[in-house]
Amino acid sequence: MFGKKINLGYHNSMKIDVAVIGGGPAGITAGIFASRAGLNVTCFERLSVGGQAALSYEIANYPGFENISGWDLSEKFLNHAKSAEVEFVYEDVKSVEKNKSKFIIKTSNNKYEAKKIIIATGCKTRKLNLENEAKFTGKGVSYCASCDGGFYKGKNVCVVGGGDSAMEYVNYLTRIANKIYLVNRSERFRANEQTFNKVKKLKNVEIITNANVVSLNGKDILEDIDLDILGEKKNLKVDGIFFAIGQIPDLSFVKLNLKKDSLGYLLVDEDMQTNMKNVFACGDIISKRFKQVITACADGAIAGNSCIGGK
Amino acid sequence: MFGKKINLGYHNSMKIDVAVIGGGPAGITAGIFASRAGLNVTCFERLSVGGQAALSYEIANYPGFENISGWDLSEKFLNHAKSAEVEFVYEDVKSVEKNKSKFIIKTSNNKYEAKKIIIATGCKTRKLNLENEAKFTGKGVSYCASCDGGFYKGKNVCVVGGGDSAMEYVNYLTRIANKIYLVNRSERFRANEQTFNKVKKLKNVEIITNANVVSLNGKDILEDIDLDILGEKKNLKVDGIFFAIGQIPDLSFVKLNLKKDSLGYLLVDEDMQTNMKNVFACGDIISKRFKQVITACADGAIAGNSCIGGK
Repeated sequence: MFGKKINLGYHNSMKIDVAVIGGGPAGITAGIFASRAGLNVTCFERLSVGGQAALSYEIANYPGFENISGWDLSEKFLNHAKSAEVEFVYEDVKSVEKNKSKFIIKTSNNKYEAKKIIIATGCKTRKLNLENEAKFTGKGVSYCASCDGGFYKGKNVCVVGGGDSAMEYVNYLTRIANKIYLVNRSERFRANEQTFNKVKKLKNVEIITNANVVSLNGKDILEDIDLDILGEKKNLKVDGIFFAIGQIPDLSFVKLNLKKDSLGYLLVDEDMQTNMKNVFACGDIISKRFKQVITACADGAIAGNSCIGGK
Repeated sequence: MFGKKINLGYHNSMKIDVAVIGGGPAGITAGIFASRAGLNVTCFERLSVGGQAALSYEIANYPGFENISGWDLSEKFLNHAKSAEVEFVYEDVKSVEKNKSKFIIKTSNNKYEAKKIIIATGCKTRKLNLENEAKFTGKGVSYCASCDGGFYKGKNVCVVGGGDSAMEYVNYLTRIANKIYLVNRSERFRANEQTFNKVKKLKNVEIITNANVVSLNGKDILEDIDLDILGEKKNLKVDGIFFAIGQIPDLSFVKLNLKKDSLGYLLVDEDMQTNMKNVFACGDIISKRFKQVITACADGAIAGNSCIGGK
């Protein structure tokens, strides 16, 4: 299941045409397309493949699979990439820099050299940065329902957010928790309408709108939270709070002068090339409106295909 | 398997929010995304769903399926769309025009009204337009190996083209025909390198480059063909010739003033919207470089999502 780990000082022996940084849907598909075109492709992944999608409880809008868990879909993607001869290296990429016409990739353990780079690292989860938020993380505060939901069997919990992720969290928790408060800062929910309508019908869900979480209370673990609802304070006794409030792009490891939009996402052209030759990007890390598994895969296909030839 | 056929003069009774014209990967995915968002979606398809992809003998680059026939993948797409409550109407769309704020869709049998249109009709197959080409179509001349290949068991055939489709035709025919001539007008093959390398290894394939087909000979059926190879004539005895020489966009049915590129493909913005409000397009019919099942699906996802709201 896992790629080879090599502990050499400088890893020149492994000829890499294309280094894909990140093993989510975008990176995997980039790997499949570049490798099938005859290129030597290595995909670097810190943890396990699948990216954020792997954490999804269920995915119902990837065409061909009416309903599949993120984990299962990721496994299919991984097997597909392996059958297309994509190499996987499970190491944390610390930096990518340029050295003449090549790129140097430093991980915790090794150095690698590659001719072309595809950045497919996705995003990090956004935090509210409340007092106690860090302290209670793993002790009542979570950013992933499918990871931590199981700890809250029969408990009261809160999900914060109004998008598809928030709905997914609620759907996951409804079969586990006793009661779920869905807290959104406005009256409008960004989530898919069908999904939201289903959430509204769930018996153990109470929706609270126009509400901001203002404090996380407890001694050693989370015991209750305070909301500010249009100026009025409301206290909720909950054992867990799940934040689903968005993503942040993290490109601090990229030591290249790449152009980004105002939110920090990479700007790419029609071929998924950044402003730097031989550096491509795809998936959630690029600047675009609509981010889904299927669009990430298509970005990856284009990026992988763009690595062909001397361009 | 087939949608309801209704033979009323004017079909107002069926409220259509989004009419998707074409049931290939792009159209189907557009339908899934729009329908899951709570919109009433009807997909119009002339023949059977799947588009050109359905005719593919094998598809190895749609992530999640290491190897699947176009037909099987199309069936999965169709079932997915049905589970997402997309309606299918199996009628040939003769025209789409605007009437005040709505669009009128005329088929061979009926008229329909819709608020928004997604054009996902893909492309038509390019012909060489040689003398006898039309006369011998179905009598030795074919544009689809997976459709007609079975008729050439143990025979000698020719495949014309240098792209992925040509390779696919050869791969399909290699197990059926006695000998396959792969004829390309230049020395360079546009096809995926891995695929082409595999084709080169096939024992019953002979590759002829810098060659143009100049005549199709025979009395009632194709008996042999003439090639022009850099000025020299060469005759080949073949019972079948399969053209895989590209696509033509067909938008003659669209009675709207839509902007196209110089080749006749629709120009769309980031949301897959054409220059006309509420008219979207996706898949092979739009102007873009890289056309694959996965990219068609992503286009469709964006188009479907863009139909949400009053935009």
